[in-house]
Amino acid sequence: MSGGHGSARRRRRGVITLLTDFGLDDAYVGIVKGVVLGVNPLARLVDLSHGVPPQDVRRAALLLATAYRVFPAGTVHLAVVDPGVGSRRRAIIVARAGQWFVGPDNGVFTPFLDDTGSWSAVELGATWCRAAEVSPTFHGRDVFAPAAAHVARGAAIERFGPELRDPVRVRWPAALRSSGALHGEVVHLDRFGNLITSIRATDLAGDDVVEVSGRELPILGTYSDLPPGATGGLIGSGGRLEIATREESAARSLGVGRGARVTLRRRATTPDQP
Amino acid sequence: MSGGHGSARRRRRGVITLLTDFGLDDAYVGIVKGVVLGVNPLARLVDLSHGVPPQDVRRAALLLATAYRVFPAGTVHLAVVDPGVGSRRRAIIVARAGQWFVGPDNGVFTPFLDDTGSWSAVELGATWCRAAEVSPTFHGRDVFAPAAAHVARGAAIERFGPELRDPVRVRWPAALRSSGALHGEVVHLDRFGNLITSIRATDLAGDDVVEVSGRELPILGTYSDLPPGATGGLIGSGGRLEIATREESAARSLGVGRGARVTLRRRATTPDQP
Amino acid sequence: MSGGHGSARRRRRGVITLLTDFGLDDAYVGIVKGVVLGVNPLARLVDLSHGVPPQDVRRAALLLATAYRVFPAGTVHLAVVDPGVGSRRRAIIVARAGQWFVGPDNGVFTPFLDDTGSWSAVELGATWCRAAEVSPTFHGRDVFAPAAAHVARGAAIERFGPELRDPVRVRWPAALRSSGALHGEVVHLDRFGNLITSIRATDLAGDDVVEVSGRELPILGTYSDLPPGATGGLIGSGGRLEIATREESAARSLGVGRGARVTLRRRATTPDQP
Repeated sequence: MSGGHGSARRRRRGVITLLTDFGLDDAYVGIVKGVVLGVNPLARLVDLSHGVPPQDVRRAALLLATAYRVFPAGTVHLAVVDPGVGSRRRAIIVARAGQWFVGPDNGVFTPFLDDTGSWSAVELGATWCRAAEVSPTFHGRDVFAPAAAHVARGAAIERFGPELRDPVRVRWPAALRSSGALHGEVVHLDRFGNLITSIRATDLAGDDVVEVSGRELPILGTYSDLPPGATGGLIGSGGRLEIATREESAARSLGVGRGARVTLRRRATTPDQP
Repeated sequence: MSGGHGSARRRRRGVITLLTDFGLDDAYVGIVKGVVLGVNPLARLVDLSHGVPPQDVRRAALLLATAYRVFPAGTVHLAVVDPGVGSRRRAIIVARAGQWFVGPDNGVFTPFLDDTGSWSAVELGATWCRAAEVSPTFHGRDVFAPAAAHVARGAAIERFGPELRDPVRVRWPAALRSSGALHGEVVHLDRFGNLITSIRATDLAGDDVVEVSGRELPILGTYSDLPPGATGGLIGSGGRLEIATREESAARSLGVGRGARVTLRRRATTPDQP
Repeated sequence: MSGGHGSARRRRRGVITLLTDFGLDDAYVGIVKGVVLGVNPLARLVDLSHGVPPQDVRRAALLLATAYRVFPAGTVHLAVVDPGVGSRRRAIIVARAGQWFVGPDNGVFTPFLDDTGSWSAVELGATWCRAAEVSPTFHGRDVFAPAAAHVARGAAIERFGPELRDPVRVRWPAALRSSGALHGEVVHLDRFGNLITSIRATDLAGDDVVEVSGRELPILGTYSDLPPGATGGLIGSGGRLEIATREESAARSLGVGRGARVTLRRRATTPDQP
């Protein structure tokens, strides 16, 4: 297990990211931060998103997969999307590539739990780091926040519980090639109405058109390769194929949303219409 | 008065929380933070909420009462929900249990101004800490932010004005027991649709059913004690009775909102229906 | 050019503000912060707003003009509202009065690029500070964030590219006096429904009534000079004339929005109606 990246001194000032479905109208996020700063006053807190739809574990996993890469070594990612709070679902700390992930063991860390063996995990069961009284409805405050703060201060993850080899994983949307075509789906709509798909840049093999909602669209380099109002596919900043409409919402212009099927292929040399 | 918790050095790095009705689309919150960091560059800023409905002083008071407890000693809570800005309403600094509260004297600090004598307060009237020119419409920027920043740096609250013994209080929703039943009300709906009530854990005395909107519901331990889609009462993380529907919105499933009456009693041994 | 304000040591802890149209539901803002903290771990990050309507450059410029003033010398303002990302639009760093502004050269810094010669600018073209691979769709992450972080650490702006003398400016809403009346427009509605106009305090010359949407309204000192429910004009905290309804939304009570015409004049001594 890799519990010792960076010096303790350096790690005390380390970054802790927060990803929840708490929204920003209640004070739940602020409460979690108060607990973290009580344990680790020098932690740097960065919000990833608190707008995850309530209890949408896959959405949280996708956001985290997009974001974690840019953070410095030693960063602790605290993710609390926790429909099973108070039940027997386990809590988990994952170590991977010099970063840590703390949250419920419900699949929210699926993207980091691949078969390459590049991760290790413990079941977060220790009580020394918990609140004196643990609310059955707010483990974000009483279990996960103090654990994340202690990890960020340099506590080795072995101190938090026994090794966990069978973490929960959620179905992870992928891309499948069959009969020469690459099949995927829309996994997310961002604020600009861009349709983010399950297809990664590395899945492409000469495909140059994308079909969605019965329309065939070109694959381009960037938004500004599109004439205003036109729609096309491109590789977005997260390394995934996305469908965008120039300076408009592709979701609206195409009338499609999350779950819509997306098919890539090479442009036929014979046109469809004779 | 308790103006000297923690060393000045430690307090310079102290936490300042922010609670406003400014929303996040305008730059008002950022402006307040800019002023704070100008006075106290090492302050740690934590947002509690900026989604308080405009001018809803009671909502702000309730949020603060839920949140303040987890913050470390020396924390300064800056609350700006200020319908009377520019009028003769006073400004106030409250000291209580090693924390400070800075804002308008309009009842936003009601939960901390009880009859136990465990608090002290000053009228924030000093001009040495104000902006050179005070806008009549934005005391958050010109009066409260610099005062909070100076308190967080270690300035004794006596420096900000004379003792204030009659702070404004708002009606505080409570629970009343009569004829064996405990009567309260819904004081808040959180993002998950949970109905937070005025009834505290300590008000319960063997009550095991809760009646709301004509329905009688069980009182349980946690969300996951409910079957999916079922509704019940439980003690939430803030120590209050809340009504929740498992993995759904109780507000929607019951069709009730803020202000709805809630009654607790012991389950009758004879059923209502013969 | 003024690239050397403050000591490098002091500037390492400097403030970086963020202003985008990214919204808070996606993780884009968190990603930008992760990049900044990777380069400059001690930077103090302050959100101005991420609720700028998608690609609304003028709105971003207006927010920044309202907010920058309160920030300490050495602050770097990072503004990413960037409809032309991936196109040939230039990137820019502006230095003015001890602060820096980093973003696309699309007019978002118009308020700071006046004819007084008090600013200087470079075209941000250097590659030493960029991400190894620059996504054509997310310069906020790959170009602007690292540049802002390096400026905040003390890098002289000459290191980022050649001088830029012809930055893009957007039309900036102003006030015009003709036939004794002062004509302006509503440039923004804030969260409280206050109508912020293009008319500045310094434009007034004895005008004491404001006409909007066919109604003539008094000009007052502050919100609380209005009886509850009444509407009037006053100089807001940003130094602009705004129209407010006491404890209500003026936008709703008058039924007007952004772009509405506003006219100021001296009250006629003879009443309109005989």
